[in-house]
Amino acid sequence: MSTLTTPTVTFKVADIELAEAGRHQLRLAENEMPGLMALRDEFGPSQPLAGARIAGSLHMTVQTAVLIETLVALGATVRWASCNIFSTQDEAAAAVVVGPTGTVAEPAGVPVFAWKGETLDEYWWCTEQIFDWSAEAAAAGADWTGPNLILDDGGDATLLVHKGREFELAGAVPETPADASTEYRVILDVLRRSLATSTDRWTTIADGIGGVTEETTTGVHRLYELHAAGDLRFPAINVNDSVTKSKFDNKYGIRHSLPDGLNRATDVLMGGKVALVAGYGDVGKGAAEALRGQGARVIVTEVDPICALQAAMDGFQVARLESVVGDVDIFVTGTGNKDVITLDHMLAMKHLAIVSNVGHFDNEIDMAALESLEGAERVEIKPQVHEWRLPTGRSILVLSEGRLMNLGNATGHPSFVMSNSFTNQVLAQIELYTRPEAYPVGVYVLPKHLDEKVARLHLDALGVELTELSPEQAAYIGVTVDGPYKVDHYRY
Amino acid sequence: MSTLTTPTVTFKVADIELAEAGRHQLRLAENEMPGLMALRDEFGPSQPLAGARIAGSLHMTVQTAVLIETLVALGATVRWASCNIFSTQDEAAAAVVVGPTGTVAEPAGVPVFAWKGETLDEYWWCTEQIFDWSAEAAAAGADWTGPNLILDDGGDATLLVHKGREFELAGAVPETPADASTEYRVILDVLRRSLATSTDRWTTIADGIGGVTEETTTGVHRLYELHAAGDLRFPAINVNDSVTKSKFDNKYGIRHSLPDGLNRATDVLMGGKVALVAGYGDVGKGAAEALRGQGARVIVTEVDPICALQAAMDGFQVARLESVVGDVDIFVTGTGNKDVITLDHMLAMKHLAIVSNVGHFDNEIDMAALESLEGAERVEIKPQVHEWRLPTGRSILVLSEGRLMNLGNATGHPSFVMSNSFTNQVLAQIELYTRPEAYPVGVYVLPKHLDEKVARLHLDALGVELTELSPEQAAYIGVTVDGPYKVDHYRY
Amino acid sequence: MSTLTTPTVTFKVADIELAEAGRHQLRLAENEMPGLMALRDEFGPSQPLAGARIAGSLHMTVQTAVLIETLVALGATVRWASCNIFSTQDEAAAAVVVGPTGTVAEPAGVPVFAWKGETLDEYWWCTEQIFDWSAEAAAAGADWTGPNLILDDGGDATLLVHKGREFELAGAVPETPADASTEYRVILDVLRRSLATSTDRWTTIADGIGGVTEETTTGVHRLYELHAAGDLRFPAINVNDSVTKSKFDNKYGIRHSLPDGLNRATDVLMGGKVALVAGYGDVGKGAAEALRGQGARVIVTEVDPICALQAAMDGFQVARLESVVGDVDIFVTGTGNKDVITLDHMLAMKHLAIVSNVGHFDNEIDMAALESLEGAERVEIKPQVHEWRLPTGRSILVLSEGRLMNLGNATGHPSFVMSNSFTNQVLAQIELYTRPEAYPVGVYVLPKHLDEKVARLHLDALGVELTELSPEQAAYIGVTVDGPYKVDHYRY
Amino acid sequence: MSTLTTPTVTFKVADIELAEAGRHQLRLAENEMPGLMALRDEFGPSQPLAGARIAGSLHMTVQTAVLIETLVALGATVRWASCNIFSTQDEAAAAVVVGPTGTVAEPAGVPVFAWKGETLDEYWWCTEQIFDWSAEAAAAGADWTGPNLILDDGGDATLLVHKGREFELAGAVPETPADASTEYRVILDVLRRSLATSTDRWTTIADGIGGVTEETTTGVHRLYELHAAGDLRFPAINVNDSVTKSKFDNKYGIRHSLPDGLNRATDVLMGGKVALVAGYGDVGKGAAEALRGQGARVIVTEVDPICALQAAMDGFQVARLESVVGDVDIFVTGTGNKDVITLDHMLAMKHLAIVSNVGHFDNEIDMAALESLEGAERVEIKPQVHEWRLPTGRSILVLSEGRLMNLGNATGHPSFVMSNSFTNQVLAQIELYTRPEAYPVGVYVLPKHLDEKVARLHLDALGVELTELSPEQAAYIGVTVDGPYKVDHYRY
Repeated sequence: MSTLTTPTVTFKVADIELAEAGRHQLRLAENEMPGLMALRDEFGPSQPLAGARIAGSLHMTVQTAVLIETLVALGATVRWASCNIFSTQDEAAAAVVVGPTGTVAEPAGVPVFAWKGETLDEYWWCTEQIFDWSAEAAAAGADWTGPNLILDDGGDATLLVHKGREFELAGAVPETPADASTEYRVILDVLRRSLATSTDRWTTIADGIGGVTEETTTGVHRLYELHAAGDLRFPAINVNDSVTKSKFDNKYGIRHSLPDGLNRATDVLMGGKVALVAGYGDVGKGAAEALRGQGARVIVTEVDPICALQAAMDGFQVARLESVVGDVDIFVTGTGNKDVITLDHMLAMKHLAIVSNVGHFDNEIDMAALESLEGAERVEIKPQVHEWRLPTGRSILVLSEGRLMNLGNATGHPSFVMSNSFTNQVLAQIELYTRPEAYPVGVYVLPKHLDEKVARLHLDALGVELTELSPEQAAYIGVTVDGPYKVDHYRY
Repeated sequence: MSTLTTPTVTFKVADIELAEAGRHQLRLAENEMPGLMALRDEFGPSQPLAGARIAGSLHMTVQTAVLIETLVALGATVRWASCNIFSTQDEAAAAVVVGPTGTVAEPAGVPVFAWKGETLDEYWWCTEQIFDWSAEAAAAGADWTGPNLILDDGGDATLLVHKGREFELAGAVPETPADASTEYRVILDVLRRSLATSTDRWTTIADGIGGVTEETTTGVHRLYELHAAGDLRFPAINVNDSVTKSKFDNKYGIRHSLPDGLNRATDVLMGGKVALVAGYGDVGKGAAEALRGQGARVIVTEVDPICALQAAMDGFQVARLESVVGDVDIFVTGTGNKDVITLDHMLAMKHLAIVSNVGHFDNEIDMAALESLEGAERVEIKPQVHEWRLPTGRSILVLSEGRLMNLGNATGHPSFVMSNSFTNQVLAQIELYTRPEAYPVGVYVLPKHLDEKVARLHLDALGVELTELSPEQAAYIGVTVDGPYKVDHYRY
Repeated sequence: MSTLTTPTVTFKVADIELAEAGRHQLRLAENEMPGLMALRDEFGPSQPLAGARIAGSLHMTVQTAVLIETLVALGATVRWASCNIFSTQDEAAAAVVVGPTGTVAEPAGVPVFAWKGETLDEYWWCTEQIFDWSAEAAAAGADWTGPNLILDDGGDATLLVHKGREFELAGAVPETPADASTEYRVILDVLRRSLATSTDRWTTIADGIGGVTEETTTGVHRLYELHAAGDLRFPAINVNDSVTKSKFDNKYGIRHSLPDGLNRATDVLMGGKVALVAGYGDVGKGAAEALRGQGARVIVTEVDPICALQAAMDGFQVARLESVVGDVDIFVTGTGNKDVITLDHMLAMKHLAIVSNVGHFDNEIDMAALESLEGAERVEIKPQVHEWRLPTGRSILVLSEGRLMNLGNATGHPSFVMSNSFTNQVLAQIELYTRPEAYPVGVYVLPKHLDEKVARLHLDALGVELTELSPEQAAYIGVTVDGPYKVDHYRY
Repeated sequence: MSTLTTPTVTFKVADIELAEAGRHQLRLAENEMPGLMALRDEFGPSQPLAGARIAGSLHMTVQTAVLIETLVALGATVRWASCNIFSTQDEAAAAVVVGPTGTVAEPAGVPVFAWKGETLDEYWWCTEQIFDWSAEAAAAGADWTGPNLILDDGGDATLLVHKGREFELAGAVPETPADASTEYRVILDVLRRSLATSTDRWTTIADGIGGVTEETTTGVHRLYELHAAGDLRFPAINVNDSVTKSKFDNKYGIRHSLPDGLNRATDVLMGGKVALVAGYGDVGKGAAEALRGQGARVIVTEVDPICALQAAMDGFQVARLESVVGDVDIFVTGTGNKDVITLDHMLAMKHLAIVSNVGHFDNEIDMAALESLEGAERVEIKPQVHEWRLPTGRSILVLSEGRLMNLGNATGHPSFVMSNSFTNQVLAQIELYTRPEAYPVGVYVLPKHLDEKVARLHLDALGVELTELSPEQAAYIGVTVDGPYKVDHYRY
């Protein structure tokens, strides 16, 4: 696999000199990520992550670059891969490799194994690299060879460690099942190669890891399953369910990036149009607010009667997709479920209706059925924007091939939103590293006072003046002056 | 106490003939309370509350009248008192006493012990009456003498039973402490009279009660304390923390009734004015939305950094009250804390600034300090609207004497909102009565599928079409087709 | 007509002592009418209306009381009647009669001929009184006997003068036509009595009048017709079409008073309901914004394609009433046309749908057809709220008997909005009185710099900081630093 | 000037083969321009523009391409140039040249003289070409040599004709003044070359022109001046002041394109930020609504007290820029005036505040002062996004170098908005061509029934159902059933 021998990012940087452009963007992003910058100010002197060796697997974007450099500023050593084959911003990767004080000629940053448009082979090779700390160990004269923390998004890094250890204990990697996905085949190949070299590499790595902090719903779901099965090897902090993550990322992130994606993809006026938002969870709430804010008339579909009632009380029509499909100009899915927009729906849509997804997987829209539809023709208007000419004589416009259009057609969540999420990540890393006794193997959410701290670190940038409780007031409602201020089940 | 010998509501009804007016209002309210009406349709035939004897203590309003008649329609026998000396709507009480099929001459309804403007003595006498089921027992030839369920708001009915039993076991009611509140003095008097008559009356009543369903935060707080101390005598369902209660009552109820109260009290244009909302919990969120919807510029104060960040992300200025006090035209407190608006604040306000509270107690605004301020003069503009002329030469307008202005200056939450809350109440009563084995002594929230059912029963009235999951979709997200659809900690 | 011998308002005041309550309300209203108060400050010293004798005919409300006392503060002598038989607030009338410095025993205010609930005979008697200045003339030793200015709302005062003069010139009042309206009969009677006493009374009065300022669309329409026919006897200023009148009164006034009226009439939750707003002019725009602000889903009907397109671009569904009549919970008309809601519509509505009008006449809803419908029954829920039981078995709720519900069920436009309208009135009176040479007989709108002045006088109260043009900037856009800032056809 | 000999767009098309990409975009744009497509349906059969020879000068975008092909579909012959050196979308130009039925090898479209990034020499050469109809005349065997209609944007085409004629009558082009702008120098050069060839070319052209329809405020302003000076040579229709142009283009266009530009330029989260909108005319109203819709807190600056009062009534803080400059994250100018943001303002801004203009000229922001500021450094983050490092140690981000950022950083107004504007254009061309007797030399706005027609043609695409007046209703309000529905001074 010859391509795997060359693409160290360091080389690419020297070659393509993206680092300076990336550094410009980092400087602007830092201004929008006050939580991370505040952590640098607060914890820079005390270096709580000194000694931490973090293997990170998360979209290698400009925002992640600010996260990485924050971890470094707090004392950590870091190796990084992306968690998605398409999401790397090469200039951000380059800037991180060069580092804030390095130059292209003499990089002084963090090893990053990620570039835009990896193959699956390359992707898992990259992931493997973040666990190979032999160079760092040699430089430090240390006896460890792996990381002691994982920062994960989607759980691929955690998966590799657990599967590697499992197969090492079993003595062999199993045969690849006939119906295995392409991705699983690649993983098995990677581990087969590994076992050919060492029979305890992943076992040793697993033993050395003090914990993982996980970014996403999907990754968290895997962790709970692993723990329920008794197989989790180290403690995990569920960053996803911090209020300042899930309620902000989903609602306010989508409110920003949905119209951005529609604009960049189609330039279509939203005002006066009929837009359908499937799902009125936090994603749907953000989407509906954004579309209304642009003058669209929004119709919501919902399965959950509580969310449906909320949508109605917020002034939206709530209908079944079938009832209104022919009136809708813009479809947006945000349910996290599959087959929300079916082929039958697509065949009943208006000519050039826009079909897009900000939920999760590309099966929210039944793209598979569309792609195999006899007589349908796909015309690329521009990258990530395709007109599908249907046998009905009408066309529909599908964005990002049914995948997340706020990533595919726009630039995803903005820095300020990611600053909330990533400040949770850093605090979670500090928790695991500095208070291991508090976290036996298990899955945890961050304690509420840290969730509140994340919010607190983002207030000054918005000019927010926070009121302080007097001791009498705090006593009156049964809290301390410094919080936490709410019961755990408070819904915000 | 001679007044206590006459005021049976039955007599008042005959005397004042309010019943017909009340029945008109009930008919209109029924149209706005689809949840309760749906329960009558669903459970009328099966009579799940047949045999239930419910002692109810909750504001005796038109909406409560529909609740009471729903309980009766499901088989229950009911006696009722209000939980507040001012909140009774006499025509509603009269209509309930007469009953849907009765006449003023031959009432066929429910005994109600409540009228607008009770004294504290009268209030606790009324509360006592809902536990005296001797007439019903005699008619039924039964050996019980009390209720077997309580429906409570604020916990006064529950308190009376627990205190009565406590003193009976102790053998005597203790001396009234020198610093006892007026209300506690009255309670002790009531129980002293009771013990003079019977030494086991409340003990017997307590033993006969299968559970209580509690409406409010305050009442729920008391129940958790009682249970933590090991003193709770029967299971309790915390209706307050159903999503369809707390998220709807607080947010959408206040959104409706705050501007209504401001209008009825002052007729002041909200558009263009600066309004300050203290607290950005559900109450504050509803208040801020309502004021913005009328064109006011809203400033929020907050103590909790997460809620403060939400307010900022929703586009509101977040400031300390001190920073903006002189710019604000309308003050609204919704914190649930005390001393949120202090005397110093009031002295710094604009001339004729409006000061109002939709939070909880009247100490959110430091009315005590205002009332004892040297040189301040109180001028009644009309009932519940007072100009306080301050020594500064400026005046402020205080609504409802600092108490809940949406009740004092308007008519509280509208029927549709209360239908959500009360449908929870009825379902909770059914749960306790029909599935006692599921509820050992303790404090419970309603299971999520019932919370979802409450929402479901309110959708048709709003023209909401709910989407149904296919079995494949349900399996895909790990739920059943009929719900519940979310994990317990989901925040909505 | 014996009742006409007693009801001087001065007597009623002494009798009922409403004046003090009225004075409280005036003090509060003054705080909300900064334009009028600023005129008192600016023009009080120079007394531009000294010598002006103003006959006023305009709803005798608290806000009008502040207007009247402003005219007096600027030097005018005033006599007043209401322009509507129902709209007088008796306490306001009483307060004006007593005057700010008078007492009930020794009134020192303005003669007001108005009370709530006049008959038509009384109404026109009252209107007649504002033209009888014999007492004032006697006190002044003057040779005039009538006013020299009219301030009119709807044109009744202007009509009486013109008709009186016309019939005097003709020598007789014509026979009352068989198909004359009740009101026209009364007018003819009044003038017949007048001619029996004097053959040149109205001719003399008309000659003495320097002009009229007219408040409403209807009155303005009459003036343009009169002028087009060559019959207008004195100049008129069309106050209605000032931007600060029509754009503020209609849009922001209705935004305030529509939900207020719905609440006071029905207490029905607007959130989640389907509301239909007929007409998307300024009234409809205000109504739609208010309902959306309360969480209703708003559907608009329109005849004018430009306004319809605006409604769509603002995010509202635009439909024909027939298409959606069965889905609507709340109907609001604001078109200024007739038969907008027909009997057929009413028969197709949901049970207990609310039917209300904030447009103009009660024929926007075809009340006549409803009232003559065989088998319909009218049940008064409370004053101005009627359930109409229809032969279909369903009912509808009609507010204010189809008349303006923001007046009938609420208190009309709030003081701040009226301050804009009335500041235009006062400036118009000053124009006519101090610059008669600028206004030959004709109909005029106020010059734009005065319209801007009205706005300017309302900014401080809202904390608005206005930016000033530099001379260079003013020259650059071809205006002067002090305005006017826009071309005449600018649409705002 | 050798470059001028080659760049016929026909050649470029053959060379660069952009036409197909452009045709895709046209097809999508046609779906968003229902007004133009409806005109093709309505007037295609009758060919009202048969014989019309239109010289068009207007941004050569995709939307303009749809306009051009509409004119052709109605019978016109067309030659086109852009009215701006930067605004041409080359693929749109290419598609128009090729034409809907042509091929790159055999173009069958319209001669277009426009490409992205013209020099000023090239720009005026292009403008000259649209008046040279010798090829068309030769093909038709006709005796004319120029156009008989102009469709203008900004008035450059009209200017060239008038200046050319003026100098021909004078016998010579005057000396170029020492202080002439670069652009005026070029114009004089063009005309000098023309006079060297022909002494009556422009006079003949001017005599042959039946009128001009003008798109913009600036162009309209020039026309009124020309007419006031008695120099206008042919009638002009002011398309800019149609309601469906100015109220839609400015308000709804900016609402769409402002956030789009901010996103594409900076990816900065608008939610929670403080945004300042300078000017609350239609542009400012659209900008403020868009920013609020994204969760920003909006502060407005205004000079005109009426607009300031509107902003306050719409819930916005209105302040002077000086008072709040240090709190603002995003500055947006929309005043049409100069020096709205001065250098002093920029020096007082927060670090990395965003400075942008959607008003008109780049002097709304004093870019000249910034560019000449000692010690300031300009860093290009990406094209049209510059960080200016100021001597204060802070930076600001300037978008599009102070020019219109909705064009420079986004794609300008969306097709649907332009469809309104351009439908006015086509109707105005038809008016001038088919009813010349109705338009003696002068400047006209389109009659209101055509303005209403434009709106009407855009309703179906939005699913709007328009209500029809009954004859009785129409008579009642004094209009005809088909409109126009409002008086001319109605403000919408």
